[in-house]
Amino acid sequence: MKPTRRNVLRSGLGVAAMIGFPEIRGYSHSEIDERMKLEKGLNGLTKADLTTPVLILDLDLLEANIARMSQHAKAAKINLRPHGKTHKCPEIAHRQVKAGAIGLCVATIREAEGMAAAGVKGLLITSELVGKPKIERLVKLTRKAPDTMSAIDSLAHAQQMSDAAVAAKINFNVMLDIDPIGRRTGVPAGETAIALAEKIVKLPNLKLRGIHGYSGASSHVTGFEARHAHSMKVMTPLIETFTRLKKMGLPVEIMSGGSTGTYNIDTELEGMTELQVGSYVFMDVDYRAIGSKGGVIYDDFAPSLTVMATVISKSHSDRATTDAGIKAFSTDKAKFTPEIKGITGVTMSYGGDEHGILVFNNPGRDLNIGDRVEFIVPHCDPNVNLYDRIYCVRGEKVVDVWRTVGRYGD
Amino acid sequence: MKPTRRNVLRSGLGVAAMIGFPEIRGYSHSEIDERMKLEKGLNGLTKADLTTPVLILDLDLLEANIARMSQHAKAAKINLRPHGKTHKCPEIAHRQVKAGAIGLCVATIREAEGMAAAGVKGLLITSELVGKPKIERLVKLTRKAPDTMSAIDSLAHAQQMSDAAVAAKINFNVMLDIDPIGRRTGVPAGETAIALAEKIVKLPNLKLRGIHGYSGASSHVTGFEARHAHSMKVMTPLIETFTRLKKMGLPVEIMSGGSTGTYNIDTELEGMTELQVGSYVFMDVDYRAIGSKGGVIYDDFAPSLTVMATVISKSHSDRATTDAGIKAFSTDKAKFTPEIKGITGVTMSYGGDEHGILVFNNPGRDLNIGDRVEFIVPHCDPNVNLYDRIYCVRGEKVVDVWRTVGRYGD
Repeated sequence: MKPTRRNVLRSGLGVAAMIGFPEIRGYSHSEIDERMKLEKGLNGLTKADLTTPVLILDLDLLEANIARMSQHAKAAKINLRPHGKTHKCPEIAHRQVKAGAIGLCVATIREAEGMAAAGVKGLLITSELVGKPKIERLVKLTRKAPDTMSAIDSLAHAQQMSDAAVAAKINFNVMLDIDPIGRRTGVPAGETAIALAEKIVKLPNLKLRGIHGYSGASSHVTGFEARHAHSMKVMTPLIETFTRLKKMGLPVEIMSGGSTGTYNIDTELEGMTELQVGSYVFMDVDYRAIGSKGGVIYDDFAPSLTVMATVISKSHSDRATTDAGIKAFSTDKAKFTPEIKGITGVTMSYGGDEHGILVFNNPGRDLNIGDRVEFIVPHCDPNVNLYDRIYCVRGEKVVDVWRTVGRYGD
Repeated sequence: MKPTRRNVLRSGLGVAAMIGFPEIRGYSHSEIDERMKLEKGLNGLTKADLTTPVLILDLDLLEANIARMSQHAKAAKINLRPHGKTHKCPEIAHRQVKAGAIGLCVATIREAEGMAAAGVKGLLITSELVGKPKIERLVKLTRKAPDTMSAIDSLAHAQQMSDAAVAAKINFNVMLDIDPIGRRTGVPAGETAIALAEKIVKLPNLKLRGIHGYSGASSHVTGFEARHAHSMKVMTPLIETFTRLKKMGLPVEIMSGGSTGTYNIDTELEGMTELQVGSYVFMDVDYRAIGSKGGVIYDDFAPSLTVMATVISKSHSDRATTDAGIKAFSTDKAKFTPEIKGITGVTMSYGGDEHGILVFNNPGRDLNIGDRVEFIVPHCDPNVNLYDRIYCVRGEKVVDVWRTVGRYGD
C-alpha cells in the first residue's frame, strides 16, 4: 500500500476505531516517521499515541535553555562551542548555531561525521582519535570539513597524525589537550604541555590551534562557591600555559573548556575564549543536585528531556511497575535514579532491563495500570544514547521527531 | 560513486596505503556494511580494521554455548524458548531455533515485530503489553504471526486485550504471569492466580496457553546449592498452581520460566515445560561470579561477547585511558565493571561517557597508545542494547556483521 496521507490515516485509525479508542493510535516508530513526513506540524499526534518507553523533548524548555546560555555568553563576550556528545542531534546543533554558537564539540569520529553531513561547521572533536581506522576517517572528514579540529596529548599520537596528514596532502587542525585534574586525558599544564606544544608545531601538516582542557571534576562540585573555587584553581594553570604559548609566538588562539556546571564561573577566567557546555540543553537529576548560585537546586536551565513510561502492573498496594527499566535510563550514577515529574511521594528503582518499580510513600495521586508517567533522566548524555529518536512536543502535541547520530556501531 | 567491489576497495585502501598502513583500514560502519555485502566471507577484514569501541562476538564460542544448552535441554526432555531480549538479534535467534528451540521469548513489542519480520516463530512476549498503542501493534503482529503469546497479570489488562481482539476479529494467545518472588510483575501463585485464570478464560478471544513465571531473584544467587534451594522454593508454588489449573480443566499447556543461572536446576521441577534462558549465548561478568556446580567461576558457558577498545592516552605511569566508557558498557551493576581479557594486573573504571581508565597493579604486559584491549561485559543484555551492530569474528577475522532490532524509539 502506497503511504498516501489517506492510507496512513486509515491504517492507523482503523484498528484504533475498532477497539474503541479513536483518539489514541498504535504506531511503530517507523510508521510515525512516515506520518511526520506527510503531515509535518499538522499530524494530530499526541504523546498518548507513542509507544513507551520513549524519549520526550519539550521544545519550549529546550529553546529557553538555548536562549539563556546564548545570552549569557554574549554578555560575557565569550564564544560558545556547545558539546554535541550530550544530544548527538543535528537539529539541536543547528539551533545552537543559529543562537550564536561558533561550532560544535563532539566526542567521536562518528558524531563528527554525522554533524558535518548535516552541515554543522566548526567541529572540535574533544577526544584523541588514536589508531589508523579513526585517523583514516578523520582524513576523509577533513577533506569535506577542513576546519575540523581534534585533540592530541602525546607525541606518539601527534606523529601518527602528522604522517597521515602528509600522506593525504591535507592539514589537521589540532588542539593540545591539557589535563586540569582528572588524570583521564591530557598532559599536565606548564612545562610538560609547553614541551609537547613545541614538538607539535614542528611536525608537518599539523596546525596547532589552541588548548582543550575539560575539568569534569569541577562541573559537578556541589554548591556554587565550592564549584567556583574548584574550577578557578584547576583551570588557572591552563590559562597560564595558554598565555605563555602565545608569548612564545606559538599560533594558539583558542582556549576551550568549561561545562554546564561552570558556565557562569569560567567566564571569569581571563584568556578563556570559548565554553563547551553540553548538558544545559536537557539537564538531568545529577546536575540539578549541584546547586545554583542562589539555591540547592540547580535550576538555571530547565529539565527539557524526559522518558515517558506506562504503568503495566500493579499487584501490590505499595508499588506499581512500569515498562521503563535499565535499558530506558542511564544507570552510571548509582546515586541518581530517574525523578518522577509532577507526582509527590513516589520514587523509582530499577526492576530489571525492562521494568521500573514505583515505590509509594503517601503518593500525590493514584497510579493505575495504563497510566503514563514521565521522568527527568539521571544523566542526560548516556540517556539520549539509548534511543534512536527524540520525540519533540509542545504540551501534549508531538510536533517533530528528531534522529540522533553516532551511536557505536552505527 | 557506485559501490562496486572495485570502488569500495579503492576508497578504503587508498588512504590506508597512502598513510603507510596497507594492512589496516578505516571504514565507517556503514562502509563496512557495503563491503560485507560485496565480499561475504572473503572480505579480508580483521578486528584491527574496526573503529572502537565496538561489540565483538566470537562465533566459535557462541556456537558452543548454543550447542551446550541445546544438548542439556534435549537430555532433560524440556523445551527451550530462549530469551531474545539478551541479543535482540534475528541471526542468533535463527541459530537457536536451528539447534532445537521451539521459539523465542522477547520483552517488547518492537523486538517481537523485528523477530517476526525475520521469520522467527513461536514468540512469547514476556512483558505485559499495556495501553492502546502497544495493543494495536500486537493486533497487527498477531495477524502476521498468530502463534504470538504475551503476558497478562491483571483483569484490567485482560479486559483491554479481549476488547481489542474482539474488535479486530482475532485471538490473542496469553500467558498468566505469576510472580515467584520479585514483586515486579505477576500475581501471587495459588488462589489469586487461579481466580485470575478463571476470569481470563471467560473473556472472549483470549486463549490462555499457560503460565509465565520468571524468578530473576533466583538467577543470580551465588553458589550452586543456594541457588538450587532458592529456585526450588520460589518456583514450586507456580508448578503447583499450573497443576491445579490443568486438573480444573483449564487449557494450560505451557509452564515457562528459568534463566541461565538456573538452567540445570529448573529441569528438576516436574511440570516445567520450557526454559527461557537468555544470557548463556554471551555470558557476562555478573553471571560468571555466581559460581557453577563445581567452582567459584560460572563457566558452564563461555564469554563470547566483548567490547574492544583502544588505548588513547597514557600520561601517567600507573594508568592508561581507553575510548570505551559509560556509553560503551552496561553500568547498571555498580559491583561489576568490565573485565579485561587476557591481561593480568589491570582493572578498569569509568572515566566518563567516552573514556575508560585502566589502572595498573603490576600489569602482565605494557599497554601503550594505540593498543587494542577487549573486555568481558558487565551485564550482557543492556550492553548489547548500546550498539547497532555486532561484529562476528573467528580469531582475528571479521566474518560477519549482524544487526540488532528493537531499541527504544527504533
